[in-house]
Amino acid sequence: MSKDIYPSYPPTLTEERKKFILETVRDWSIARGLAVRPPPSFVDPKHDPTGVLATSAPVTLFPSLFPRSAFNEATSIQKAYNELYAAITMDKGWLQEIVSEIAGIDEFVGQLWSVHEAVAKEGYAQELNLGMFRSDYMIHVEKGKPGLKQVEFNTIASSFGGLSSQVSSLHKHLLASHAYPDEITGAVTAESLPPNPSISGLASGLAAAHREYTAKSNRPTCVLFVVQDPERNIFDQRLIEYALLEEAKVPSFRLPFAETLKHTRLESDRSLTYTPPHSPEKTYEVSVVYYRAGYAPTDYEWPEAWEARLYLERSSAIKCPSILTHLAGCKKVQQVLATPGSSHLQNFIKDTLELQRVRETFAPIYPFDDSATGTKARELALNPKTAAHYVLKPQREGGGNNIYRKAIPDFLKSIPETQWPAYILMEMIEPPPQRNTIMRNGDVEEGGVICEIGVYGVCLWRIASGEQKGGEILHSANAGYLLRTKGDQSEEGGVAAGFGAMDSCSLVDV
Amino acid sequence: MSKDIYPSYPPTLTEERKKFILETVRDWSIARGLAVRPPPSFVDPKHDPTGVLATSAPVTLFPSLFPRSAFNEATSIQKAYNELYAAITMDKGWLQEIVSEIAGIDEFVGQLWSVHEAVAKEGYAQELNLGMFRSDYMIHVEKGKPGLKQVEFNTIASSFGGLSSQVSSLHKHLLASHAYPDEITGAVTAESLPPNPSISGLASGLAAAHREYTAKSNRPTCVLFVVQDPERNIFDQRLIEYALLEEAKVPSFRLPFAETLKHTRLESDRSLTYTPPHSPEKTYEVSVVYYRAGYAPTDYEWPEAWEARLYLERSSAIKCPSILTHLAGCKKVQQVLATPGSSHLQNFIKDTLELQRVRETFAPIYPFDDSATGTKARELALNPKTAAHYVLKPQREGGGNNIYRKAIPDFLKSIPETQWPAYILMEMIEPPPQRNTIMRNGDVEEGGVICEIGVYGVCLWRIASGEQKGGEILHSANAGYLLRTKGDQSEEGGVAAGFGAMDSCSLVDV
Repeated sequence: MSKDIYPSYPPTLTEERKKFILETVRDWSIARGLAVRPPPSFVDPKHDPTGVLATSAPVTLFPSLFPRSAFNEATSIQKAYNELYAAITMDKGWLQEIVSEIAGIDEFVGQLWSVHEAVAKEGYAQELNLGMFRSDYMIHVEKGKPGLKQVEFNTIASSFGGLSSQVSSLHKHLLASHAYPDEITGAVTAESLPPNPSISGLASGLAAAHREYTAKSNRPTCVLFVVQDPERNIFDQRLIEYALLEEAKVPSFRLPFAETLKHTRLESDRSLTYTPPHSPEKTYEVSVVYYRAGYAPTDYEWPEAWEARLYLERSSAIKCPSILTHLAGCKKVQQVLATPGSSHLQNFIKDTLELQRVRETFAPIYPFDDSATGTKARELALNPKTAAHYVLKPQREGGGNNIYRKAIPDFLKSIPETQWPAYILMEMIEPPPQRNTIMRNGDVEEGGVICEIGVYGVCLWRIASGEQKGGEILHSANAGYLLRTKGDQSEEGGVAAGFGAMDSCSLVDV
Repeated sequence: MSKDIYPSYPPTLTEERKKFILETVRDWSIARGLAVRPPPSFVDPKHDPTGVLATSAPVTLFPSLFPRSAFNEATSIQKAYNELYAAITMDKGWLQEIVSEIAGIDEFVGQLWSVHEAVAKEGYAQELNLGMFRSDYMIHVEKGKPGLKQVEFNTIASSFGGLSSQVSSLHKHLLASHAYPDEITGAVTAESLPPNPSISGLASGLAAAHREYTAKSNRPTCVLFVVQDPERNIFDQRLIEYALLEEAKVPSFRLPFAETLKHTRLESDRSLTYTPPHSPEKTYEVSVVYYRAGYAPTDYEWPEAWEARLYLERSSAIKCPSILTHLAGCKKVQQVLATPGSSHLQNFIKDTLELQRVRETFAPIYPFDDSATGTKARELALNPKTAAHYVLKPQREGGGNNIYRKAIPDFLKSIPETQWPAYILMEMIEPPPQRNTIMRNGDVEEGGVICEIGVYGVCLWRIASGEQKGGEILHSANAGYLLRTKGDQSEEGGVAAGFGAMDSCSLVDV
């Protein structure tokens, strides 16, 4: 098989060796916060009413192999991606045109756009935008050479940046503590395991925005994490909060999205103030609203949800992301840029080499409307034979929403054709196979796996208010990476959704 | 009440504030390894067969108040204590005399002494000794002034050094993240919370001994943690292992005491080699045997236990502790030094000021033999009225073995009088009362508490072999502290035994 590019890996383990590695993983992961709250299927909440128990996050026992050239390209191109998505939000007319194609069909996108329109009418109170992005790729092998193909670009609530640094450290610890057999030498060395400063990278992004904001404020300020409640993936977020406090001395608080109206106030100068319920005598001015909620329609299933989103958006707090940045993460935007023959990308990237490098990471994506390309895509999707090479995606963030391969034709027939344009059709990326072992809630599975890398980027930029187009980048940086690995049977990669595992890269020259 | 020396503390919490603090504690403790494996009474092992679940270690929500003068004295006197106990092991004749008084009655002490005799006959293969000590004290108020009174001196398996650093950091985090109410200002400040480098301090001790050993060896070497299995307090030990690897690059392995004969070998040159079962192709020379087991008679309930202890002791690995150091931790030694009127201490401490300072930390302890002092002690202990001020202690390390106050007379009547000399009688230290809140497995208890401080010390010394007396100190240092806090109803302080909680000191000038 031509896509089979990796050497034989990992070595077979004796039972004693496997036991030793598992013990090391179980203990190290808790000692270093590479943990999650156990799912109800594992621990019945009635046995732990206060939620004090934790379990190791699902992890691979070995770092997976990853082509060094592709890793270097993914990380070195991240700043260009930061700036591309910033530039998209600076061109409101262009974004409006794209979004308008789906806003009438996809209710969620429509509501997000209405929030933008309402704020734009009044005038934005904050020109600064913070992006904590993650660009996800898989390796695609063409003519025996591995290249990157983008799966999606996340502009809101990019998760696992807290646990990612830790799983990189876990694999380094296993290597340093002689847990791996000698046969691994060469494939895994201190040099093949790249540094992964995702925690401090993301915390630095929040700190940079906080500093820009507080330069103009005299009141006590804080970063506000707007969160889901309850949150099983809590340690992932906490590790960033702690780094923000310890490394940058920036205080932050967590506030469930559904409680934002109750505990924040939009002041007459449109600053957002937060009065913590545990400390009602103190009021903080919010420098940055960091959304770890609000990306899924299910987050809005309470009466005042849209009122709350609008209210936060109207404030002068820096939003991560702003509503325009959230919208720039629509699959439709990705499709418009990536459809073969599209010339949209050159609106945003002027450097020819950079343009080419970004374009090379695109997998073919087709619209699902009644344009000529859309009609062709519909034919591909309705035919079970050709559908087998595609995935159908709605505009949503988060796992669990995609329709894969042979399931596509029946799914399409089950929904009204008027809704079809809200989807995009993407060629399946077929990553090179390899093997690994995943530990999840103490259970161990061994077998073929596929990996998805995510590269974090932080970006702070200004959108010219009152103008249709314009702005400037203030800060753009890399912020570590994520490797998620799943059994090659599964089609979804979200670890929180119960499928994948946290992993790290061992770079190989292939 | 004259022993009531502290200001009113801690402030009363609103329900919202308490909820906020508890959430912070639950998450921070797991993120930073301030954790234990849940007891079977909390999580039925059949629900977690692989043992992957963890829970927050029992902790106080606030740092307890502690007199600054006493804290400074406890830490500054630790080097003298390190050197006192090293000196005791250098005087085998003296130690033999003390031990012989109980060796015939206390079987465990007798067996330990036999191990020493067997090795001494052959000649010790290693002159170096490592001590990782912990000297435990309570505050005793006399004439309104707080002083230190020693509870016991631990020479083997001194625990909680891993978690101690972390609970100090937890309280600092609660302060820095504005979790505490403003009323706390003054009582708890960044300056009132002393640094607590117990993890790196203890790891440095092991590393110093390892370096001394490896200076004379060309083979791959490792530190061997000889452990109980299973171990619920595993993270406490792991945090030290990880620091040893990360900070000093010293590899270590864990080996259950009951498996030592199976996986180690006493070579003809009396070096101890370890072949890890997970890596049978590799053999390490053991630089340091670090006992986290072997201190309780129950650790010897397997057929070859004493053979194993002798075998390890015969080796040229540096033992932490050696059998003589283990024996120096007998309560009898503490009693002989601390009995009012005793002149033994000046055999070991030449500096008059130091002698006085150490002596001032002694609480009155009486022998329980048929000497004149012993007869007086028996009278005190058999009379329920006077017994109420005493605690009766066997030679054991670890909580759960002491007999308190009014229970003493009946206990004494229940055992043969010939066994009485194996006990010591100690005046109860009556620490000043204060209040705190303890979180244990998610449950919360609020009320009066008493605190016990433990100061860690590491010491590396040489015992002159082939001579009855002599040696030299190579390295002696402080290594952080432990504060354990329990409800003022309970008489035992061992957190692992399920009674106390991990705490840290907020220093006050009283």
